[in-house]
Amino acid sequence: MSERLLSIYGPGLLGGSLALALQDRMPEVKLRFWARREQARESIKARGIEAEFFTDPMAAAAGASLIILCTPVETMPDLARQIAQVTLEADCLVTDVGSVKASVVNRLTPILGSRFVGSHPMAGSEKTGIQAARADLFQNAACLLTPTAQTQASYLQRLRDFWTTLGCRLLEFSPEEHDEKVARISHLPHMMATVTTLAALRSDPSAVACVAGGFRDTTRVAAGDPSLWTGIAAGNRAALTTLLHEASRTLAELTHLVETGDDEGLQRFLTEAKALRDTVPLSLPRSRA
Amino acid sequence: MSERLLSIYGPGLLGGSLALALQDRMPEVKLRFWARREQARESIKARGIEAEFFTDPMAAAAGASLIILCTPVETMPDLARQIAQVTLEADCLVTDVGSVKASVVNRLTPILGSRFVGSHPMAGSEKTGIQAARADLFQNAACLLTPTAQTQASYLQRLRDFWTTLGCRLLEFSPEEHDEKVARISHLPHMMATVTTLAALRSDPSAVACVAGGFRDTTRVAAGDPSLWTGIAAGNRAALTTLLHEASRTLAELTHLVETGDDEGLQRFLTEAKALRDTVPLSLPRSRA
Repeated sequence: MSERLLSIYGPGLLGGSLALALQDRMPEVKLRFWARREQARESIKARGIEAEFFTDPMAAAAGASLIILCTPVETMPDLARQIAQVTLEADCLVTDVGSVKASVVNRLTPILGSRFVGSHPMAGSEKTGIQAARADLFQNAACLLTPTAQTQASYLQRLRDFWTTLGCRLLEFSPEEHDEKVARISHLPHMMATVTTLAALRSDPSAVACVAGGFRDTTRVAAGDPSLWTGIAAGNRAALTTLLHEASRTLAELTHLVETGDDEGLQRFLTEAKALRDTVPLSLPRSRA
Repeated sequence: MSERLLSIYGPGLLGGSLALALQDRMPEVKLRFWARREQARESIKARGIEAEFFTDPMAAAAGASLIILCTPVETMPDLARQIAQVTLEADCLVTDVGSVKASVVNRLTPILGSRFVGSHPMAGSEKTGIQAARADLFQNAACLLTPTAQTQASYLQRLRDFWTTLGCRLLEFSPEEHDEKVARISHLPHMMATVTTLAALRSDPSAVACVAGGFRDTTRVAAGDPSLWTGIAAGNRAALTTLLHEASRTLAELTHLVETGDDEGLQRFLTEAKALRDTVPLSLPRSRA
């Protein structure tokens, strides 16, 4: 493993959790943080993270062996252009943790070349900011890597080693396959949680007094950052739209069964859903509801 | 509090949790269980519950000061008819824990008279059976009581005291209001979880390898018992159908925003959902995901 100096761009939930996990798992690696605002320095320190701090993206890149972009995906191309102006270490690997991959990989590869490989650790929370960061965020999480034909094998292997050290299970997809998979298991569920919340409470907010664990869990992610999720939806518009139409057809199918009193059909529908839901792995990172 | 001998019909998740909670909170009260099958006796004992055991619904009712029906709602009218044939204690209060109330109250009140008052503790799990029962299931749960014009005040007050002793927050609604509220915050979310699961995984079950906490929580209840939920949907068909149509309109609204790239509108939609989701009380019974 040739990681020596690791530069994290964006001290939010993911960047902060990475730093905390790295202090545990790779204590020999030096850490840097880049943030747009000088004030971030204090919140990093407040979480007990020892790191050099920069507000200049070029200064934060010089000398790094591994650069990880943990900002919203919209910000990444601009950061990549500034990083590419620096004389980087010969073996400097750049990755990101963005929730969409085709748009990120297609925009960053021309700028950064074969040293860029996309990552997407499937870990997060409806909470945001370094205050919500935790060292075990990546433990047992799936991490989706998106190498392309241009990816150098040595960079890919280093990236695999890196995420494995943090406790992730690895999966590899093309950027387009990645976006289709996560539209299914992350972006669609997020959108459905917002639909459920609005359909349930918009016309009677007082019903919230009756909620139990089912509503709480089914809608938890709807408390996520609206601006972040607008960006994610924009970055995966085609795949998400396809899935939303699929959900609409499935909802119509269910509504018909309930409305017409087809209880046998409804039980088959619920049984099919249960069988699929029962395939979810039991060991996933804990959420904090 | 005049509870002396409490007879629980149905040793499942709710009946078993009631018995465990009562052993903690009202140790002076004697417990009985009625179950259809003799084999249930062993699983009750295996959970450390001290109770008399009956397979005859009439024998289980005689002498009880409080009868709680914890069976599927379809079974309740038949049990009530048998219970009504017994010479019950003069102050015997009968309640249930069913997830729908208008159909239960309308069918059980003519059979049991003013001694019947409906309850719905908002606590449960996608798991079923006495194996999943736990003493703290009702702690901090909302419990919805559904008195009617026929309800005697003294029975209602005893029911309030009973659930309060188990740690519940009380809310009171007419049976019809109850069904409308729980369609919003329980039955709709359950159905949406099954739709999300099917839309996400039906056409690509392998995507489950990528799931994280968001999918796990958003779809958790879809692992619930299909037969139980078919009964609940049948018992609350009108209110649930209305909500499913509302969800369908809301999903169409969201799909249009995503599809047309109206990011400003999408952010407003997500912000409205977050504001409503943020009203969910923080202290709810824990779920075991």
